[in-house]
Amino acid sequence: MSKTSIDASRLLGRLAELGAIGRDADGRLVRLAASDADKLGRDCLVAWIEAAGLELAIDRIGNIFGIWVPDGTRDRAPLLLGSHIDTVIDAGIYDGCYGVLSALEVIETLKASGFAPSRPIAVAAFTNEEGVRYAPDMMGSLVYAGGLDAETALATTGTDGSLLGDELKRIGYAGDRKPGFLTPHAYIELHIEQGPVLEREGLSLGAVENLQGISWQRVTIEGDANHAGTTPMTMRRDAGHASARVITFLRERAMASNTPTVATVGCMEFQPNAINVIPSKAIFTVDLRDPDEDRLREEEAALARFLESLSAEEQVAISVQRLARFEPVKFDERIVATIETAARARALPCRRMTSVPATMPR
Amino acid sequence: MSKTSIDASRLLGRLAELGAIGRDADGRLVRLAASDADKLGRDCLVAWIEAAGLELAIDRIGNIFGIWVPDGTRDRAPLLLGSHIDTVIDAGIYDGCYGVLSALEVIETLKASGFAPSRPIAVAAFTNEEGVRYAPDMMGSLVYAGGLDAETALATTGTDGSLLGDELKRIGYAGDRKPGFLTPHAYIELHIEQGPVLEREGLSLGAVENLQGISWQRVTIEGDANHAGTTPMTMRRDAGHASARVITFLRERAMASNTPTVATVGCMEFQPNAINVIPSKAIFTVDLRDPDEDRLREEEAALARFLESLSAEEQVAISVQRLARFEPVKFDERIVATIETAARARALPCRRMTSVPATMPR
Repeated sequence: MSKTSIDASRLLGRLAELGAIGRDADGRLVRLAASDADKLGRDCLVAWIEAAGLELAIDRIGNIFGIWVPDGTRDRAPLLLGSHIDTVIDAGIYDGCYGVLSALEVIETLKASGFAPSRPIAVAAFTNEEGVRYAPDMMGSLVYAGGLDAETALATTGTDGSLLGDELKRIGYAGDRKPGFLTPHAYIELHIEQGPVLEREGLSLGAVENLQGISWQRVTIEGDANHAGTTPMTMRRDAGHASARVITFLRERAMASNTPTVATVGCMEFQPNAINVIPSKAIFTVDLRDPDEDRLREEEAALARFLESLSAEEQVAISVQRLARFEPVKFDERIVATIETAARARALPCRRMTSVPATMPR
Repeated sequence: MSKTSIDASRLLGRLAELGAIGRDADGRLVRLAASDADKLGRDCLVAWIEAAGLELAIDRIGNIFGIWVPDGTRDRAPLLLGSHIDTVIDAGIYDGCYGVLSALEVIETLKASGFAPSRPIAVAAFTNEEGVRYAPDMMGSLVYAGGLDAETALATTGTDGSLLGDELKRIGYAGDRKPGFLTPHAYIELHIEQGPVLEREGLSLGAVENLQGISWQRVTIEGDANHAGTTPMTMRRDAGHASARVITFLRERAMASNTPTVATVGCMEFQPNAINVIPSKAIFTVDLRDPDEDRLREEEAALARFLESLSAEEQVAISVQRLARFEPVKFDERIVATIETAARARALPCRRMTSVPATMPR
C-alpha cells in the first residue's frame, strides 16, 4: 500500500512564516491573545484555510475552524485536529502552531490525494490557550467544550486592562457561531514535547495515552523560633528541619516506586528566616502527579501519614491546605493504538506517554 | 565560717527602678545607647555609685566605672564586675542591668561587712552593648579592650542619623578617661541565661566555662528549573531537594554526636519558587557552633565533604561563601571553679555551660 505524504517544505515554510509574525524589538516572538500581532497571525491562518478551499467558521470566543466537508458527509460528526496560535512572551515557533498547521497540511494533502473520508475533517485554532493576557488559560477550548460560558469569558479583563470581547471585535475575530457548534467525532492534537523524555531517548513520536492527575497542597509546619546558639539539638522544634524531611521523604518514595509518580516541592519559605534563629515556621508546596487516580490518592494518603508521624516525632504542628486537584484523564485507546500503528508503519520510533495540562492550574 | 549576704531586696528594688526608666507609650522598655532614656538610666546608676562611696570614672566612649579602692590597694589591678544598661527595643529588665546592679550590690555588701580585699573591686557599665542604634554591638567593651579605636567608634552614625560622639556629649556622658585605663586582674559578668537549659533542668546557676566558636556560611546550590509535571524523578537536578539533604545531614550528624555541637539552617530561599517548577536554585545559611576549635573545624570539614559528594550525586553545582568565623574562647579555669565552689557552699544547683556572644556577629 502506497503511503500519502504531506508536503514537508510547505508545512515548515508556513511555520517559519507564522513564526516571523509578532516579533518584538528584541526579536522575541510575542503574539498574545487578541492583540494586533495575534490578528496578523490569524489573518495568515485564515488566508491558508481559504486557499485550501475549506469552510471558514469563527465562533463567538474567536476560535477559528477550517472545515473540509466532502460530498455526502455534512451530517456526520467531524474529525477535529488542531491547537492554538497565540503565544507566551518569547515563545518558540512550534508551540501550538505546529498542531494547527500540521492539521491544515494533513487536510490539504488528503484533499489533493483524492482520499474520500467518511466524515468531515476540520482544523481548529483555539483562542487564548496561553492565558498570558487573559486568565484562565485554555480559555477558547474551555468555552468550546462548555466549561465556561462565552459571556463570562468575553468580559474578562486583561493584564493591560482591556476586555477580551472588545479586543476580539477590534481585531475582527468576534465570530457569530455558537461555541461548540461543531461536535467532533474525535479530537487529535499534535504538539511538540514540553518535557525532556523523547529527546533523551532519541524518539520521534510520543503517543499520549493519558493526562496526569494533579494534586497541589500547601503545607505549614510550626515549631519554635529559638536561638541557634543556645538551644541544644535535642531541645529543638525546628520547622525547617521538619520541612526538609518532607522533601526527602517525597523524593525517596517517588524514586523507590516503579511508577510515573512525580513529586515536587517548588515553593519554600522559612520564618523568621534569620541566620541565627531556628525556623519557627516552614511553608511549602507539594505538587503530586500521577496518571492513575488510585495511585494519586495513595500518594496523597502516604504524605498525610508521613506528616502525622513527623508531627509527633519533631514535636511540630502541621496543617495542610488543598490548592488544586485534577483527576487524571485516560485517552481513547483506539486513537492511541492508531497513532502507534501509523508510526510503526513508517518506522518512526514511538513510545506511549503521559501528558500534563498544556499549562498548569493556577 | 559565716556567709556574707547581699541585700536582695535592695538589688531587686534597684532592678525594678532602673527597669521603669525608658518605657515607651506601649509600656515597652526601650533605652537605646546614648538616648535620653539611656541618660536617665545612667544618672540613676551614677547616683547609686556615688551613694555607695565609690570612685566614679567615665571614659571617652562613655563606659561608666564605680571603683572601690580599699586602703593600700591603689597600685593593684582591680577585680572588675559588670555588664551594660542599654537595652534593645522591648527589653526585659534583667538583661545587662542584672550584671551591673549585682556587681554594685556585691561591692556595697563587702564594703559594709568590713571585708578587706587585696585589690580594688570595680563595677562597669559598658556603652552600647546591644548595638540597636549604633553598630557594631558590644562597642563600649570592644573599645575598652582595644579592639576598636575611640575616634572611629565616636564617629559612628546611628540608625537615626545621629553621631554617637555628639549624643554622648549631649547626654553628658562623653568622659575624659582613656578607654582601657583600668586594666583588670579578672573580669566576671553575671547575666540571665538567654537559652532554655537552666530552666528546663531546674538549676539556679550556670558557671560559664567557654564561649562558642561560630562558623557562618551561605551555601548556594544550582540545578535545573524543569517542569514539575513532565520531568521524571530520575532526570531531575533539584536544588531544593539537595538543600533538604544538607539540612537532614547536619541534623543527623549533630544528633548522633555526643558533643555540644549545634547546627542550624535558619535562612532558606528557593528559586524560581514556583509550585510547578523544580527549584533551580536553593540558597541557605549554615550556622555551626562548638566551644572546641578542633571540633568546629571538623564540623566545617564534614560539611564540605558532604557537599562535595552531594554535588556529584545530585548533579548540582554548589558554592559556599563564608559569612563569619569566630574561634571559641576558653575562660579561666580558676574563676569557673571558684564559682562552682561558691555555689556548692550555698547548696545552689549549678552546672558548667557554654556561652554564646551576647549578640551575634552580623
